[in-house]
Amino acid sequence: MSEPTKDPAVEEITQKTEELFFDDEGKPISKKAYKKLQKDKEKAERKAATAAKLAAEKAERDSKNVDYSTDRYGKLPMNQSQTRSETKYEDISTINASRAGETVTVRVRVQTSRATGGKMCFFVFRQGVATIQGIITADEEKISKQMVKFCVGITPESIVVVQAKVVKPLEEVKSCTVSCAELAIEQIHVVSDVQVRLAFSLDDASRPESSYEEDAQLVRVNLDTRLNNRVLDLRTTTNHAIFRLQSAVCLLFREFLVERGFMEIHTPKLIGAASEGGSNVFKVSYFKTSAFLAQSPQLYKQMCIAADFGKVFEIAPVFRAEDSNTHRHMTEFMGLDMEMAFNEHYHEVLEVLEDLFVYIFTNLKNRFKEEIETIKKQYEFEDFEFLPKTLRLSFAEGIKMLREAGVELGDFEDLSTANEKLLGKLVKEKYHTDFYVLDKFPLAVRPFYTMPDPQNPGYSNSYDFFMRGEEILSGAQRIHDAEYLTERAKAHEIDPSTIQPYIDAFKIGAPPHAGGGIGLERVVMLYLGLGNIRRSSLFPRDPKRLEP
Amino acid sequence: MSEPTKDPAVEEITQKTEELFFDDEGKPISKKAYKKLQKDKEKAERKAATAAKLAAEKAERDSKNVDYSTDRYGKLPMNQSQTRSETKYEDISTINASRAGETVTVRVRVQTSRATGGKMCFFVFRQGVATIQGIITADEEKISKQMVKFCVGITPESIVVVQAKVVKPLEEVKSCTVSCAELAIEQIHVVSDVQVRLAFSLDDASRPESSYEEDAQLVRVNLDTRLNNRVLDLRTTTNHAIFRLQSAVCLLFREFLVERGFMEIHTPKLIGAASEGGSNVFKVSYFKTSAFLAQSPQLYKQMCIAADFGKVFEIAPVFRAEDSNTHRHMTEFMGLDMEMAFNEHYHEVLEVLEDLFVYIFTNLKNRFKEEIETIKKQYEFEDFEFLPKTLRLSFAEGIKMLREAGVELGDFEDLSTANEKLLGKLVKEKYHTDFYVLDKFPLAVRPFYTMPDPQNPGYSNSYDFFMRGEEILSGAQRIHDAEYLTERAKAHEIDPSTIQPYIDAFKIGAPPHAGGGIGLERVVMLYLGLGNIRRSSLFPRDPKRLEP
Repeated sequence: MSEPTKDPAVEEITQKTEELFFDDEGKPISKKAYKKLQKDKEKAERKAATAAKLAAEKAERDSKNVDYSTDRYGKLPMNQSQTRSETKYEDISTINASRAGETVTVRVRVQTSRATGGKMCFFVFRQGVATIQGIITADEEKISKQMVKFCVGITPESIVVVQAKVVKPLEEVKSCTVSCAELAIEQIHVVSDVQVRLAFSLDDASRPESSYEEDAQLVRVNLDTRLNNRVLDLRTTTNHAIFRLQSAVCLLFREFLVERGFMEIHTPKLIGAASEGGSNVFKVSYFKTSAFLAQSPQLYKQMCIAADFGKVFEIAPVFRAEDSNTHRHMTEFMGLDMEMAFNEHYHEVLEVLEDLFVYIFTNLKNRFKEEIETIKKQYEFEDFEFLPKTLRLSFAEGIKMLREAGVELGDFEDLSTANEKLLGKLVKEKYHTDFYVLDKFPLAVRPFYTMPDPQNPGYSNSYDFFMRGEEILSGAQRIHDAEYLTERAKAHEIDPSTIQPYIDAFKIGAPPHAGGGIGLERVVMLYLGLGNIRRSSLFPRDPKRLEP
Repeated sequence: MSEPTKDPAVEEITQKTEELFFDDEGKPISKKAYKKLQKDKEKAERKAATAAKLAAEKAERDSKNVDYSTDRYGKLPMNQSQTRSETKYEDISTINASRAGETVTVRVRVQTSRATGGKMCFFVFRQGVATIQGIITADEEKISKQMVKFCVGITPESIVVVQAKVVKPLEEVKSCTVSCAELAIEQIHVVSDVQVRLAFSLDDASRPESSYEEDAQLVRVNLDTRLNNRVLDLRTTTNHAIFRLQSAVCLLFREFLVERGFMEIHTPKLIGAASEGGSNVFKVSYFKTSAFLAQSPQLYKQMCIAADFGKVFEIAPVFRAEDSNTHRHMTEFMGLDMEMAFNEHYHEVLEVLEDLFVYIFTNLKNRFKEEIETIKKQYEFEDFEFLPKTLRLSFAEGIKMLREAGVELGDFEDLSTANEKLLGKLVKEKYHTDFYVLDKFPLAVRPFYTMPDPQNPGYSNSYDFFMRGEEILSGAQRIHDAEYLTERAKAHEIDPSTIQPYIDAFKIGAPPHAGGGIGLERVVMLYLGLGNIRRSSLFPRDPKRLEP
């Protein structure tokens, strides 16, 4: 049989009923109409078959795909230390091209994410000051589209644990600190997510100050917004670097002094009487009486000298109830204090302080270069200039320089902030240093416990240190004679009975001594040219700010 | 002439006036009476001659002696840094027999002086913890009796500058730390003298506790007297050693943590709201509003973790307005705080803390042996025992041990001070350690931010560290989920709005973290077995003491 597809039974009927055609309901219709009907039927059948086939295909596809990645992504339950594995969590700063092919686990923060098509997602992951690129690409086996979709949905600033293969990128990832390697994500789990709209993006918070000159449309995060959302703000690499540097100043301060035989002390911040003049002191309810917050460890560090501790230092908060709303005043700041007995002349102490700063500046420059460069990217500043042998001018010389520059002022007049700055500028021009010492201040502008200059009436054995024209240390030889101290307190209208334990300390013999107090945040602000002291304090306090 | 002593003239008169004798008024007297008179006269003349000779000798002596030492002793005018010489001032601890013959200059405090005859005076000179004997002997050339007299009059605790020859003593000076050399004084000048009667002698203040058992008559300086006269009290070598050790604990704490990548932070002590429960907090007048003193850096160090600082520490005062008048409570003390993000389990942090203490204890023992031995002489104590791998018990195990010892207490009952001490004793007997960790405290006895134990309801991921049966560290895994934290705050009846910035920090994603706070003075007190925390605080503060 040449046409095996023809059914002999149908052939027979067709022959029998020649010329008779019926529709589906049995009504007779024309041959043409019948043929059209048949064609339509076939068409519908074909359509249905196609649909069925597509459905079957989809079902098959779906059954294959029923998200084969579920154990590779998701949000973890709140960590309550449920388990502990042997997993090694890597620092992303240790990842580089030489480790290509390795599988690593990292815990990172999602700085940004960007989807391309439905199949890929790019991340910038951050860990402290380090960043690295992450990529996830859907495939047939491990990475489902669902997983990629989940990745796209992770909000910036969420914390994720990522298992990934280290790969060498096609080209250098310039936007990340790790530029020669990236992470091909194999697993990603959210440890902690972001539950609110961020007050600002870290990109906006990290923009170089200079960029606003180029593009005025850019979002600028002002200081108040930053401070109101300080935790978010502190996450910028710039802030990480600023506070690493703040930490470094303390470290170097201690390193230098411990090496020279200084001993660390801790003196009380709650004191029985407003000891240093009375005003500008915070009052505390203390059970049934009142106490005050120490404005400095001054009296106590001197008492340690009277107790023969010889050389002491303290790093502690100091409190000033001054209603000063300026770029450089806070109501609470860190005082780096030192006090030292000397044998003959307070310049023995002044030299230690000068050497201390040269040590700090030298080591910041050498050991914390990276932090300094990071900060410079956002807040551009000129490198801090200092001399190996610190410039020391007398107050009178300072006055003379100012007068020569056209400023009218009296011999014993204290320097205004403006004159301090101007003098800093004049010194910088003449001596090429951002750091210098002004010695022999007028007695009248210093605290009651300051030792007068024996040769020049009206002056005193006291000094200030300046960085970029702003005061960062104040110090002096102190009066170690009880009788004279009492006399000087009275002259300053301080009732000696309010500072009796302090005066008594000198009645049992105290060596001549001198010292100084450094404002930590000022040193950091001025070294880095940050322009506002609040930028160098984690959680600054001023008359208007007690939070966060 | 055989008798040349007879005057020929007298002979002649005697011959002429034979039998006639007169007294001095011309009255005739007997030959016998006359002879007696003559004898008396001669006697008186001889006497006068002797007196005149003695007077002449004395005058000659005095004229020679007109105090040939005036430029070698005296009280110096108040040091105002008048001059500066090239004089080298020596540490007395560097003086020893090998330097015999050298002339040295030292500035020292007079601990004691003792005159012998009118020509000698012995001193014990002190410099910090070192002492040396000084001797001055009058001679014909350099050391006048006036000078020796001046020495005898120098009151103990005065400060003197001494120029002296180093000599080898006839026998070892057992009472001084420098025993193989003494100072033969050539010049001595008082720099600073004592103007009042001392509240107690340093000898009395330095007496070993054991000596009172042997001799009940000895003057005992009680703690209150010491604290009221703290500057004098701090001059004892014991106190110098105690505060050297306190300083060392901070040094070692930092050494260990900096080495492990921790960063030092400084968080505010003035806070806007009473953040950790409300009670026990000091209130401060803050311009037109109120502030509070931070009871710990807890919330702020956690906020630094939320800001991705990873590992942080802080050494700063903490304030507790608790009316506790015990041997181990103060209203202000030094907190050594640390906080650390972990990857999987809070035991990662617990291990760091355990290692930290082993580091501190090991290095105290090795590097501060001298201080420890010095303190031991006054306050005898058993050496502090600790294990290279710290013993860690669960709270439940602790309860079990106490029950086995006969104590009745509930599963979730907090440990009383007495039970803590008893448990310390039981642990010491069983495990031979003065240092151990109690893990998994009942949730109900811990602060609201403590993470519950996921497996054992009623317990939490929290721990205390103990030294000699007293708590010195409290820590835990903290809740890092904002929603759950809010819920727990409410459960502790804390209004979440008062800690909003803290809770908000966790709304923008925070890693799991844990940490702890160490009481510095407790560590020092317990390590040295001092028995009272006021002995390990320079100027302690308690509900009744705000001075000195």
